[in-house]
Amino acid sequence: MNKIITISREFGSGGRELGRYLAEALGIAYYDQEIITQIAQKSGLAEEYVNSIVENRPLTYYPITSAQTLTAPITPPFDFSMKVYTEQINIIEDLALKSDCVIIGRAADYILRDYRPINMFIHADMESRMKRCRERATEDEQLSDTKLKSRVQEVDKNRAKYYRFFTGRKWGEKENYALCINTSNTVIKDIATPLAQLLKSMIECRGRSK
Amino acid sequence: MNKIITISREFGSGGRELGRYLAEALGIAYYDQEIITQIAQKSGLAEEYVNSIVENRPLTYYPITSAQTLTAPITPPFDFSMKVYTEQINIIEDLALKSDCVIIGRAADYILRDYRPINMFIHADMESRMKRCRERATEDEQLSDTKLKSRVQEVDKNRAKYYRFFTGRKWGEKENYALCINTSNTVIKDIATPLAQLLKSMIECRGRSK
Repeated sequence: MNKIITISREFGSGGRELGRYLAEALGIAYYDQEIITQIAQKSGLAEEYVNSIVENRPLTYYPITSAQTLTAPITPPFDFSMKVYTEQINIIEDLALKSDCVIIGRAADYILRDYRPINMFIHADMESRMKRCRERATEDEQLSDTKLKSRVQEVDKNRAKYYRFFTGRKWGEKENYALCINTSNTVIKDIATPLAQLLKSMIECRGRSK
Repeated sequence: MNKIITISREFGSGGRELGRYLAEALGIAYYDQEIITQIAQKSGLAEEYVNSIVENRPLTYYPITSAQTLTAPITPPFDFSMKVYTEQINIIEDLALKSDCVIIGRAADYILRDYRPINMFIHADMESRMKRCRERATEDEQLSDTKLKSRVQEVDKNRAKYYRFFTGRKWGEKENYALCINTSNTVIKDIATPLAQLLKSMIECRGRSK
């Protein structure tokens, strides 16, 4: 069975960045936006719309169906969500079977539960998360403190809803993860190498306990 | 400021064992039962009684006051709990000021919140915890599965109560810890060295972000 690491993360916690460094340190594949691109290709829905379903909420009432042909039947939004989720399951399972990898978000921890992945949840306090968002935003994207805080809260609320809807689990509940890491006051790059070593040890332990 | 690592742990999760290995790997002091011994010495209460207060519940209704003199005034149990907690604060603060160290339990994460410790929470699924309990128990101490499970649940329920009573916080809530580690299917000894390296990096990051 391949070695799979899944990373669920609060918005602005640096989870995606950490995933990239970990994949590099472990010399394994990294999947993030690629999953959305593949879902869009297979479902025929616009990538932006797929993203809005996966990242925002299970049911979107006004779909942007730009990639649908004009002759496509009118489908209620719930069907779009289910279609996207079904494709997501297929694609994530295919990736897990292909090679060792790090997968970011998309309920991969739940989808791959039979593959014994090492699941991580990355979180941080609001101050650190807002700071990280500011650092990666362009000048045009800078928001006021109030707006940024409410944006951060909104993204996570929707991630939690999506996760709850499709998995029946509470997002971020420590019992579902091998590691929960609080990245407040932490430089992601600096913890990636020792963390990769720790993950290696945990994977080896699991291998022996099969 | 000294480097402090606090370890809160579910019963049977291997948190104490992990703490010992970490202190050894980092070459720093380790405090566990020593804290109880010191509280007993300073408060004049029996060590066993102090243990029952700290590990079990904030209010014990039938104190075993064997270390009290016969002339001691009759004190309600609540006062004993407060006395023990006050001594606990003093002793833990003294230890934190003395040198770098690992402290097990006793709400040290909360007591030392101004010392910027690295707080960890160690947990595991019930099966792994029961297995660890069985491994460390003598032949005489072996319980039936039902009794062992209810003992594990009872200890943690009381730890959570004690923690909530004195800190106002929910025990085990991931937001209060730098790391939450799930030790299910994990050999504690095997993860200690890479974990020590990760903690070193996290401590360095905190040092720079002062």
